[in-house]
Amino acid sequence: MILIDGKALFSKIKNELALQVNSMVTNGSARPHLAAILVGDHPASQTYVNAKVKACKEIGFKSTVIDCPENISQTELLSKIEEINQSKNIDGLIVQLPLPKHIDENTVTHSIHHYKDVDGFHPINIGRMVLGLPCYMPATPLGIMSLLKEYKIDTLGKKCLVIGRSHIVGTPISILMSRNNSIGNATVTLAHSKTKHLSELTLNADIIIVAMGVPSFLKSDMVKQGVVIIDVGIHRIKSNKTQSGYKLVGDVDFDDIKSKVSYITPVPGGVGPMTIASLLTNTLQSAKKMIYSRT
Amino acid sequence: MILIDGKALFSKIKNELALQVNSMVTNGSARPHLAAILVGDHPASQTYVNAKVKACKEIGFKSTVIDCPENISQTELLSKIEEINQSKNIDGLIVQLPLPKHIDENTVTHSIHHYKDVDGFHPINIGRMVLGLPCYMPATPLGIMSLLKEYKIDTLGKKCLVIGRSHIVGTPISILMSRNNSIGNATVTLAHSKTKHLSELTLNADIIIVAMGVPSFLKSDMVKQGVVIIDVGIHRIKSNKTQSGYKLVGDVDFDDIKSKVSYITPVPGGVGPMTIASLLTNTLQSAKKMIYSRT
Repeated sequence: MILIDGKALFSKIKNELALQVNSMVTNGSARPHLAAILVGDHPASQTYVNAKVKACKEIGFKSTVIDCPENISQTELLSKIEEINQSKNIDGLIVQLPLPKHIDENTVTHSIHHYKDVDGFHPINIGRMVLGLPCYMPATPLGIMSLLKEYKIDTLGKKCLVIGRSHIVGTPISILMSRNNSIGNATVTLAHSKTKHLSELTLNADIIIVAMGVPSFLKSDMVKQGVVIIDVGIHRIKSNKTQSGYKLVGDVDFDDIKSKVSYITPVPGGVGPMTIASLLTNTLQSAKKMIYSRT
Repeated sequence: MILIDGKALFSKIKNELALQVNSMVTNGSARPHLAAILVGDHPASQTYVNAKVKACKEIGFKSTVIDCPENISQTELLSKIEEINQSKNIDGLIVQLPLPKHIDENTVTHSIHHYKDVDGFHPINIGRMVLGLPCYMPATPLGIMSLLKEYKIDTLGKKCLVIGRSHIVGTPISILMSRNNSIGNATVTLAHSKTKHLSELTLNADIIIVAMGVPSFLKSDMVKQGVVIIDVGIHRIKSNKTQSGYKLVGDVDFDDIKSKVSYITPVPGGVGPMTIASLLTNTLQSAKKMIYSRT
């Protein structure tokens, strides 16, 4: 069993990005600048935004957090986004999800101009991803692709099962894994809540990407020997084995399955850090105008 | 075996659209207006455009064909498209493919404004389709969905195999069949040229959508009893059984497979006419501003 170390790859990517930032600054360019809008005081959201800000600092990006009260109106939020869309000093903008219920997430995330949409949520970026055109790739799927590439995991012609069809992870990664690319060319099956006989599919798969949101769901008797497991889930569950009384687990029962797999991502420290790595990569690409040559 | 009659459904949809056009005209609205750009004198392209023009006439749409010489420059072509983008009298614009080699198909089709893109090829429409948002659906996949709906074919939880990952058919239909919709909710596998052991997949599938471009490829020994077959292929091959010396066949060996299937689309008269039906439906939606409320 080989552990796919997302934390280590995240460090490596940060080092590479830091070098690029240095060289940009030396050449007189501005530092890449990421803005994050945080609505309300959801503790997990704050943690996520803090982690992004910390990573920006580490590699020499500028970052700006725009804190908005829980009761901000959608109109006010949209006008803040429009201001950042127009700003020449900000390369990437993310709105931390979830948003309060009175605000429509699609309306908000799609109002971010596609050339600052470094989360890769805008329809133009998704459409261009499907068509294989340059775009900001959705952050978690791009992170998964980077892990598979780093560990030289052969995907060509492999049976890849994606469990979960969310817009943010399951659907885009199922598309990417089936494209005619070096990481890709897999025969992909997309399973979801309406899928019957899931065990038949898991037992038959060479690569399983689990993004279903059920703690410790995937167990050893459901997979074949030598399978590659990418675990996108992250859940905080009670534990009497930790000081805090809690531990983080994924959608995979790691301890149960680990002896049967060839490669597996741990939780935490697998896919999670890679999402931030992708966000930083997209922001640098925006600063360098590598995807869209906006004026 | 039940034959899925695309020609009959096409007639039914045309009748419904004609009624809507009548009521629009009665209410003082302009007739929906489709423009088609035809570059060069490719005989098959002329046939396709003629069929679209004929269908427009039958249901009371206006149509305009813009004939361009084979050697038109990309710049000239783009400027014609921009003119139609700006025209207030034209609701939908298609550029008949294929284009001459000196012209980039993506650049051309993506220059059509997304709210006139009734073929559903623009990244915005594809991205919105992935996200389940209102959009012009790609014409052939929408046609397939309409056939499945018309014949009340149960797709929920069914194993659906899509063979072929083109941007126009295979990829979008694989996405649509997996969405959480009444026609959808299937467990979809997308197979392509790099897929190994294809027969294993075909033998296991409840619904097979074949869009691989290989004449008479799928045979009875590759499928299970009672399978639903949607054949997207169309090939003109030599035959000593017809007066013309040619006949049309699909990607499925119809005569060989027909006794084993529950439902099957014939070629011709299956998926083909439905592509035009979708194009007309999208154009009417544009005329009524049902998808995009452009000014």
